[in-house]
Amino acid sequence: MSDEYEHRLMSVAMEEAIKAKNRNEVPVGAVIVNSKTGEIVAKNGNRTIQLNDPSAHAEILVIREACDKVGAQRIPEFDLYVTLEPCTMCAGAISFARIRRIIFAAFDEKGGAVVNGVRFFEQKTCHHKPEVNYSVKGEEAGKLLKDFFKEKRKK
Amino acid sequence: MSDEYEHRLMSVAMEEAIKAKNRNEVPVGAVIVNSKTGEIVAKNGNRTIQLNDPSAHAEILVIREACDKVGAQRIPEFDLYVTLEPCTMCAGAISFARIRRIIFAAFDEKGGAVVNGVRFFEQKTCHHKPEVNYSVKGEEAGKLLKDFFKEKRKK
Repeated sequence: MSDEYEHRLMSVAMEEAIKAKNRNEVPVGAVIVNSKTGEIVAKNGNRTIQLNDPSAHAEILVIREACDKVGAQRIPEFDLYVTLEPCTMCAGAISFARIRRIIFAAFDEKGGAVVNGVRFFEQKTCHHKPEVNYSVKGEEAGKLLKDFFKEKRKK
Repeated sequence: MSDEYEHRLMSVAMEEAIKAKNRNEVPVGAVIVNSKTGEIVAKNGNRTIQLNDPSAHAEILVIREACDKVGAQRIPEFDLYVTLEPCTMCAGAISFARIRRIIFAAFDEKGGAVVNGVRFFEQKTCHHKPEVNYSVKGEEAGKLLKDFFKEKRKK
């Protein structure tokens, strides 16, 4: 898989993160891609406020949509691109969905669960570990989040 | 809070677990209660197969329903009763929802994340720790699960 391909897909996730910001949601976006065909099957951003749903992180929303489209609770041919390191909840859902590969942009020291925090995919209670790549457009995604929370604190 | 009160609510969660089993889903049930009024605001069992949704664990379903009813993504006055120790995904959702107290029945050594596994509520990346109680009707809930998987293996 070329760097250019991953950057292109992360740009789509970034667009979703910006849309989330414009809804006043934490600016995180995600995309799910069929690894065989390259087709984007779902893209979305955080909607926890809009939906009154603490589980409505970008990752959960695209996993639910992709699974619904495929008609299965496991989608092992699919890859997930997300602009922020997944949290504990989302890492669990990624594992249950049997996602083939995850690619994330910015690190999340405070709430991440892949290379930070509980490092869920390394644990015995994790029964499917996806391939992991990171730092694709990390600076851009990180800046979007940083600026968002800076603005919030001003208000 | 009396033992009898907790047993009564766990019995409602057990009924949901049995209904899940009858749908051929992993038999786990959950109930969310308003801690001020005692009112049950949501009850459900696993529906990951039925809904083609790996996130459709009993806990997530009742949290989503309760939050939708309350009209908020955080429900700090609510208590969650569940027949099995929550997994990593559900522990994350419980924390995000700011659930006041969780009470679970059976332990889950293979996939639990409260007293087993990542023990999420003890971690720095967990930003809300609910009160925790367990073993309420633990034997009964554990037997239901054990028998379910025993039957599965026979087929």
